Amino acid sequence: MLSFESDYIEGAHERILQRLAETNLEQLSGYGQDLYCQRAKEKIREACECPEAQIFFLVGGTQTNTVAIDAFLKSYEGVVAAKTGHVSTHEAGAIEYHGHKVLELPEHQGKICKKELEVLLKNFWQDENHEHMVFPGMVYISHPTEYGTLYTKAELEELAAICRSYEIPLYMDGARLGYGLMSRDTDVTLPVIAEYCDAFYIGGTKVGVLCGEALVFTKKNMPKHFLAIVKQHGALLAKGRLLGIQFDTLFTDGLYYEISRHAIEMAELLKEGLDRKGYVRYLESPTNQQFVVLENKKYQALQKEVVMGFWEKPDSDHTVVRLAASWATKQEDVERFLELL
Amino acid sequence: MLSFESDYIEGAHERILQRLAETNLEQLSGYGQDLYCQRAKEKIREACECPEAQIFFLVGGTQTNTVAIDAFLKSYEGVVAAKTGHVSTHEAGAIEYHGHKVLELPEHQGKICKKELEVLLKNFWQDENHEHMVFPGMVYISHPTEYGTLYTKAELEELAAICRSYEIPLYMDGARLGYGLMSRDTDVTLPVIAEYCDAFYIGGTKVGVLCGEALVFTKKNMPKHFLAIVKQHGALLAKGRLLGIQFDTLFTDGLYYEISRHAIEMAELLKEGLDRKGYVRYLESPTNQQFVVLENKKYQALQKEVVMGFWEKPDSDHTVVRLAASWATKQEDVERFLELL
Amino acid sequence: MLSFESDYIEGAHERILQRLAETNLEQLSGYGQDLYCQRAKEKIREACECPEAQIFFLVGGTQTNTVAIDAFLKSYEGVVAAKTGHVSTHEAGAIEYHGHKVLELPEHQGKICKKELEVLLKNFWQDENHEHMVFPGMVYISHPTEYGTLYTKAELEELAAICRSYEIPLYMDGARLGYGLMSRDTDVTLPVIAEYCDAFYIGGTKVGVLCGEALVFTKKNMPKHFLAIVKQHGALLAKGRLLGIQFDTLFTDGLYYEISRHAIEMAELLKEGLDRKGYVRYLESPTNQQFVVLENKKYQALQKEVVMGFWEKPDSDHTVVRLAASWATKQEDVERFLELL
Amino acid sequence: MLSFESDYIEGAHERILQRLAETNLEQLSGYGQDLYCQRAKEKIREACECPEAQIFFLVGGTQTNTVAIDAFLKSYEGVVAAKTGHVSTHEAGAIEYHGHKVLELPEHQGKICKKELEVLLKNFWQDENHEHMVFPGMVYISHPTEYGTLYTKAELEELAAICRSYEIPLYMDGARLGYGLMSRDTDVTLPVIAEYCDAFYIGGTKVGVLCGEALVFTKKNMPKHFLAIVKQHGALLAKGRLLGIQFDTLFTDGLYYEISRHAIEMAELLKEGLDRKGYVRYLESPTNQQFVVLENKKYQALQKEVVMGFWEKPDSDHTVVRLAASWATKQEDVERFLELL
Repeated sequence: MLSFESDYIEGAHERILQRLAETNLEQLSGYGQDLYCQRAKEKIREACECPEAQIFFLVGGTQTNTVAIDAFLKSYEGVVAAKTGHVSTHEAGAIEYHGHKVLELPEHQGKICKKELEVLLKNFWQDENHEHMVFPGMVYISHPTEYGTLYTKAELEELAAICRSYEIPLYMDGARLGYGLMSRDTDVTLPVIAEYCDAFYIGGTKVGVLCGEALVFTKKNMPKHFLAIVKQHGALLAKGRLLGIQFDTLFTDGLYYEISRHAIEMAELLKEGLDRKGYVRYLESPTNQQFVVLENKKYQALQKEVVMGFWEKPDSDHTVVRLAASWATKQEDVERFLELL
Repeated sequence: MLSFESDYIEGAHERILQRLAETNLEQLSGYGQDLYCQRAKEKIREACECPEAQIFFLVGGTQTNTVAIDAFLKSYEGVVAAKTGHVSTHEAGAIEYHGHKVLELPEHQGKICKKELEVLLKNFWQDENHEHMVFPGMVYISHPTEYGTLYTKAELEELAAICRSYEIPLYMDGARLGYGLMSRDTDVTLPVIAEYCDAFYIGGTKVGVLCGEALVFTKKNMPKHFLAIVKQHGALLAKGRLLGIQFDTLFTDGLYYEISRHAIEMAELLKEGLDRKGYVRYLESPTNQQFVVLENKKYQALQKEVVMGFWEKPDSDHTVVRLAASWATKQEDVERFLELL
Repeated sequence: MLSFESDYIEGAHERILQRLAETNLEQLSGYGQDLYCQRAKEKIREACECPEAQIFFLVGGTQTNTVAIDAFLKSYEGVVAAKTGHVSTHEAGAIEYHGHKVLELPEHQGKICKKELEVLLKNFWQDENHEHMVFPGMVYISHPTEYGTLYTKAELEELAAICRSYEIPLYMDGARLGYGLMSRDTDVTLPVIAEYCDAFYIGGTKVGVLCGEALVFTKKNMPKHFLAIVKQHGALLAKGRLLGIQFDTLFTDGLYYEISRHAIEMAELLKEGLDRKGYVRYLESPTNQQFVVLENKKYQALQKEVVMGFWEKPDSDHTVVRLAASWATKQEDVERFLELL
Repeated sequence: MLSFESDYIEGAHERILQRLAETNLEQLSGYGQDLYCQRAKEKIREACECPEAQIFFLVGGTQTNTVAIDAFLKSYEGVVAAKTGHVSTHEAGAIEYHGHKVLELPEHQGKICKKELEVLLKNFWQDENHEHMVFPGMVYISHPTEYGTLYTKAELEELAAICRSYEIPLYMDGARLGYGLMSRDTDVTLPVIAEYCDAFYIGGTKVGVLCGEALVFTKKNMPKHFLAIVKQHGALLAKGRLLGIQFDTLFTDGLYYEISRHAIEMAELLKEGLDRKGYVRYLESPTNQQFVVLENKKYQALQKEVVMGFWEKPDSDHTVVRLAASWATKQEDVERFLELL
């Protein structure tokens, strides 16, 4: 059985497992105070060209979003996000559960648009009754988005400018950041992100580790007593080494980029094959997730041999599926899949 | 440098790492739907002699306590716990942050006493104004306690009887459960716990895995839509396999018991040595944590060669330290430590 | 200066003040246990033709919505409401602050439409990943809506049928309920509401009392220990008599209907005058709130003599204002206003 | 039937009702923006000799405590209070429900002691693991306490000094403040309180108004966007005039002091009578609440003619009752009660 179900169906890159084994019996203090966490942070600071970045390792994406958003916002503030943002739709209401409204903007293939953001912010502050409303306290974007799309450097700069003029942080969910950075069609780099975003996270779970996300605060703006905030959310890992060693390895000898690039190559191979065979892509994604329109009959037939992600039904005869390439995708699997089409 | 700082200073038992490596490239669905999670659950059900047990794997102890307590309690209810309970003292207020009061009982070497529990419950319900107070909605115990002590089977039975008569669940924090089960001085087994407790967790983080706790609901009482509740807390691990594979391994060929027994043997060696050398133990612990009274001078000298856990200062001349043995403690390290005394 | 700013710019109906004075020195127990609360509840049960209704008096509208919604919902559930619902827009995020998402539906002059509701519910339950999403746990409607519009009896019946088939409660925000009941254009009565809604509140603050809303549970479904839940929200009034006496008076000799009818008469007078003078109404409201399109110049001129509620700017030359009639509106004020036009 | 059940069994002082009637048809904006709120604030500033005081009117005591504490604290902070503090015991867990732990200190007739406070704060900050614990973020005292006792000016000064040295606010619950200010045995005045406390509230509900508490921030420290915070708690009263008019009246011509003094006179009369007849007082209270030890037989007999507050059973033969005098207590009722003894 082939599977393009998601980018988290395998374990971890072998170098990660190897480093976990090599360091296994070293005796290290808990809660992120160990040497490997320190090294990983140093390497991430360098990769971001942001020597003052403050970094905290967390276990998963929803957890990272929840803790970061909750730590940034005042109780009367909400987070602005696209209607399709992960925090808006697929986190089981974690943001609201922790007390904050998601203020939704329309989505444009998963992205928010600076004009609509500006209007939302302006309207809020102009409204005489705004103290009866939820204050827009930060802006959330995902990059790549849930649709695999990317912001350009210019777009990030514009969003950042708006956020700064309203004195609210710009936060990027980088669950699949590696696949964005290695896209053939982007001018956005880690230093660019570190410049324009007040905080962001470098996703590990979907890019080669067993679990883990590196939350980066770029402007000396890590909320005070952040460790206590993390602990209070039940999000502080006792054996912080697990995260430190994995990120230390990811950011040694460019492993993060290398494995991300591999996923992009596999996705491009997939795209070329699909195009060649005349399949319609649901939207143009320059990253590792590809969305394809299949006739229902074809979809049913394929399901016997391939696990795909159901996305939606655009009409009664067709189904959109998501095919995710990853650091672990084998070229032969892509080729076999293309043959099956 | 020797270290008895805690029972989570090493990585994972080698069989665990080996299984992670062996299964690494298998393609498995996320969020705990994989084969290994199913197998691990089956083995835990058997170990508990509780075929109807419902099991959910979580990442850490505070997380497990928070999710379980929050899922059990109504908004107007609190959890009864010893003043020294982990939820009362060292979880950064996670219980309160999620909306619930910890109703404290006195502690007796870390344990609660059935009489005081009964008085608390009876007084609450007899108070005419109890609707202005926090309802005692469940009882939390840790086993071993934060002081390494253990409940007897009879004590568990009594606590369970009280809880049942008041129709509230009895919940056990088993962060170090293995070390309790393998104590030389206990009649409490997993089936006993499954009989008397409505829910409990089998701690992995401190007993040989990289991260992970197995939360067990014993009475077909897993809260409805528990996965959504876990997700909402940011506690749902994408690669559930990481937890499934580890617990599957722990409960294969008795590994959990074997490595726990090793820790107990090391702790007993430590106790014998301490006694032989005339050191006063702060309290009598039958598990892996030992609390020793040191003269300050001795304490300072030892710190140059051994990492110990500072516990408290009983008077101005002495210091109580905690020495934790674990699945990974080497006999030669215990012996070297005893020589240093 | 004339004022049609809102329906809460005066104090209370004189009969209310009179009863407060008459009963002032009677010694009564607190927290709603007094005779007047009991009497008021009995009269409301009769008015609703719902002998089993359970009633709780609260102080204000946002408070009532927050407590009721929070008490009905499980932690992983949200409340479905129109995008323009008061809970969605003008309660400073109180619903989210207490942990729940507002799941927004499109609005049709403030109302939700049964088809869109059905689609939302059906889609949620059909989605394979719905445990990663917010569960729709209840439906909120306002009647009259924030635009002064009303549901018909048939519409309420349809919404109720959908809610029942999905086993979620239908809740009505009746902040201005009296003005809905006395509209010349409605077939919805208190017994109709009590039949179709699982809970609703009879607004007092905007209909003649100093403060107070009567929350009615119609299906023996008042959440258990509701007093404790109210107390926990800081919403339990010590001198419950203040609410009991006011509602007892409102529901004696039909005062609630009488004063609501007066507001409707004043609103109709206003509408006739506006139509006669050729003013465009922004929408057709059959209740006490009227929305009128004014040229900006006219608006500015009028503001010197009349306080009106700014609503929005449909284009750069016009302004929509809200004119609210109430139990206290004087006919001579309406006539003076019409002369000013 | 006589009643000394509590100090909120009657309505409001007649001057209050009269002013509500006189101003009833004035058209005033909502949410505390009216003239009477402004006037009341000005008079309270004068009474406190604190021209920069910021004042917000809320409806009840638990509500005021919850909003104030929640607004002051960071998410990882708790409030220090006596074990018997109202926030610790009789607010149905409202503080925890809104996310914060009550860090309990021992009580000394309802008061906290500066030494124990100092130890708690010092120990917290010295603990190496304090980021795993709840930060003490403010100090709550009640004055008079739940036992009717009072702090001295010197004690307030000391508590304030400790709070300042740890940079945390000192907050006073003044539910019965008037009765403290008019005690024959106090050197604490409103200006003293305004000097030493960072915030406090002047209780109205128990001192002559229908409902209402005046929350005073004394150091230009009202939390930003406090109105939004209040709204979010469901605590913003639409007809703010109700609170403004009542407090304006209370602070006109010294009414607050006058009616408080009356309660003290009645309480002193009661004390003298009890002493004369040889009754044992449970503790020495210099304010309006008196606690008396009765033989059970006596208690049962009295209950036929007097409503008293049950307090506790010190042994199987006796009952402690609370007798509350108030602004509305009649001298003849006290005398009749004394005759019944």
